[in-house]
Amino acid sequence: MRLAGDMPSAQVMTPEAPKAGTSGRIVISVDAMGGDRGPAAVVAGMAESADKNPDIEFIVHGPEDELRRLISHRRGLSERCTIRHAAGVVTMQDKPSQVMRHGEGTSMWSAIESVKNGEATVAVSCGNTGALMAISMIRLRKLPGINRPAIACLWPSRNPGGFNLMLDVGADIKADAPDLLQYALMGASYARNGLGITRPRVGLLNVGTEEHKGRAELKAAQDLIEAATEAGSFDYVGFVEGGDLPSTRVDVIVTDGFTGNIALKTGEGTAKLVGAFLRDAFNATLLSRFAALLAVASLRRLRKRIDPRRQNGGVFLGLNGTVVKSHGSADSTGVSAAIKLAFRLAQSGFRERLAARVASVAQAGQDADLAAVEDRNSE
Amino acid sequence: MRLAGDMPSAQVMTPEAPKAGTSGRIVISVDAMGGDRGPAAVVAGMAESADKNPDIEFIVHGPEDELRRLISHRRGLSERCTIRHAAGVVTMQDKPSQVMRHGEGTSMWSAIESVKNGEATVAVSCGNTGALMAISMIRLRKLPGINRPAIACLWPSRNPGGFNLMLDVGADIKADAPDLLQYALMGASYARNGLGITRPRVGLLNVGTEEHKGRAELKAAQDLIEAATEAGSFDYVGFVEGGDLPSTRVDVIVTDGFTGNIALKTGEGTAKLVGAFLRDAFNATLLSRFAALLAVASLRRLRKRIDPRRQNGGVFLGLNGTVVKSHGSADSTGVSAAIKLAFRLAQSGFRERLAARVASVAQAGQDADLAAVEDRNSE
Repeated sequence: MRLAGDMPSAQVMTPEAPKAGTSGRIVISVDAMGGDRGPAAVVAGMAESADKNPDIEFIVHGPEDELRRLISHRRGLSERCTIRHAAGVVTMQDKPSQVMRHGEGTSMWSAIESVKNGEATVAVSCGNTGALMAISMIRLRKLPGINRPAIACLWPSRNPGGFNLMLDVGADIKADAPDLLQYALMGASYARNGLGITRPRVGLLNVGTEEHKGRAELKAAQDLIEAATEAGSFDYVGFVEGGDLPSTRVDVIVTDGFTGNIALKTGEGTAKLVGAFLRDAFNATLLSRFAALLAVASLRRLRKRIDPRRQNGGVFLGLNGTVVKSHGSADSTGVSAAIKLAFRLAQSGFRERLAARVASVAQAGQDADLAAVEDRNSE
Repeated sequence: MRLAGDMPSAQVMTPEAPKAGTSGRIVISVDAMGGDRGPAAVVAGMAESADKNPDIEFIVHGPEDELRRLISHRRGLSERCTIRHAAGVVTMQDKPSQVMRHGEGTSMWSAIESVKNGEATVAVSCGNTGALMAISMIRLRKLPGINRPAIACLWPSRNPGGFNLMLDVGADIKADAPDLLQYALMGASYARNGLGITRPRVGLLNVGTEEHKGRAELKAAQDLIEAATEAGSFDYVGFVEGGDLPSTRVDVIVTDGFTGNIALKTGEGTAKLVGAFLRDAFNATLLSRFAALLAVASLRRLRKRIDPRRQNGGVFLGLNGTVVKSHGSADSTGVSAAIKLAFRLAQSGFRERLAARVASVAQAGQDADLAAVEDRNSE
């Protein structure tokens, strides 16, 4: 963590920029620092988004002079941005516990603060995932009724929308049955509001699809999730396997953060490996190199389809405020994709809908408990 | 499970076939039944192997008349085969517990029996994994000093040999720290004898490479594995992530059977998805279809490289006898690949070497314990 030192680390409003949000636009809070490619890539991504979307504004957090310079080079961007000075930077090496205690002067902290105080609806950061989750937890706090927040990611699939959703992919290394139920609810809500799937199909990741397989907590979670389909407005398809992650059987895949993280990185690693093998194959002979030239448009379409930058953005769910974590290595295309997702979630009123849904299922659960008690008493 | 009914289910030696192994060849015991494509694919795979490898012989298990007919159609195969009649078949739907109790008349049981009684060195089956593990456990029993057997699979990688090794991919859904140490030893031994890697590099699968990350049992396993590198003749590279499975950082990836199975199926599913996207891309336009024609040799090479049939064969480790589990959907190429792996392991004297290694590490552990006690006493 690079702390502010003697510099003023408090959030300074830049006087010349218009106050964001006054135009009825949706305001996204962007952490400009902490990504592998630095603030230039982040500002370039903001510019791409602003070009495409007239309804977006930004509050951007980082060293004021540097940000002002970068933003001034992008035509029309400065009118859509409020700069918040923050001299400190959370690095990829910083430990979350450390950042929780001493992170207050950092751009990441400042970006979350804008969501907390209601100036922005969603925050976007390319920085250290663990630190971002830690700051989000202590500043935004968990949604009432949620035990463990989760990180959801998009997974290329053969479904019409092109993506499935998986959670948790790494907020917490464990999850018991009630946590997995909450992931199902949060994932279904995200699929509805972020992906436009009216009645999402939820599956529980396991080592087999048979009822008797897998860990005990998965069997317990299965019962809880099955009982919540009506209150949560989703369908439950049962256990799914690793091979089903991209399948059309399911929209939302629920798992603990350890397994989800391994699956996510295994999938990314495999796609990369096949891509590398494909390049090798096309470089093998003169003829194949010529073929690659002919097929260049098709291959570009393929690359776009499996490009992790296009489905960039893990979403932190279960907090009083939505946070989108972009890949650390995201370039402007990746940052712009994460901002687009943030915008879509902000526009849908996702946070409020999710809170209402969790509350209603909790209520349904209590009613069921109550009914069970009454049943028992009437026996 | 299709049981034998009135038919004689005992193992009947076919009188006209020569006794396998008399020629100094290595004998592989093959379960002809239980795969998705039936005995014809298995016999075709045996014929491919026999053609390529003059040092191999088979004992093949299944319905005698059907097998004799299939084998007689393959030139030269009947002289290399002993048929053992078994009328029962274990299906993919059978529960392992059921097969353990009532599976005695099946081809799978008979195939394991040939390893148990020493007629064959390694058994190969395309059948139900759970049932095969259950029969192997009760008939072959665990190697002295092994708590949980494991299934190891090959993973396409950028290493010179083209493959990394991962275990456990599904023998057991849990593993504690001492089990993970045993997986490290067994995996290193397999990599040495099956893949020819003199000093394998072992990594422990986790959600991050930092020392403080992940589950408590992984930290404990890390200490145990680090302490066993000399006795086990391997190097320990530390925690690895899902993205490292195909990497050149590591040869053997150790994990519990739940996580390993999810990772394996996720990787296979992703490779399939990218393959489907690639086909879509080449079918998109007339030009790209022409390009695919030009690149057909290169694309065939690519398919071969990521084809799961070519790296076919999960190996059951930690038993008094080696068992190779082929994919249920394996065709003759897949079966032949599994047989090749079985041959290689048999030839290397893998089982004896593994047993010696496990014993020596157990001894080293006891010596260390003893030394620790002596240290304490001398204080």
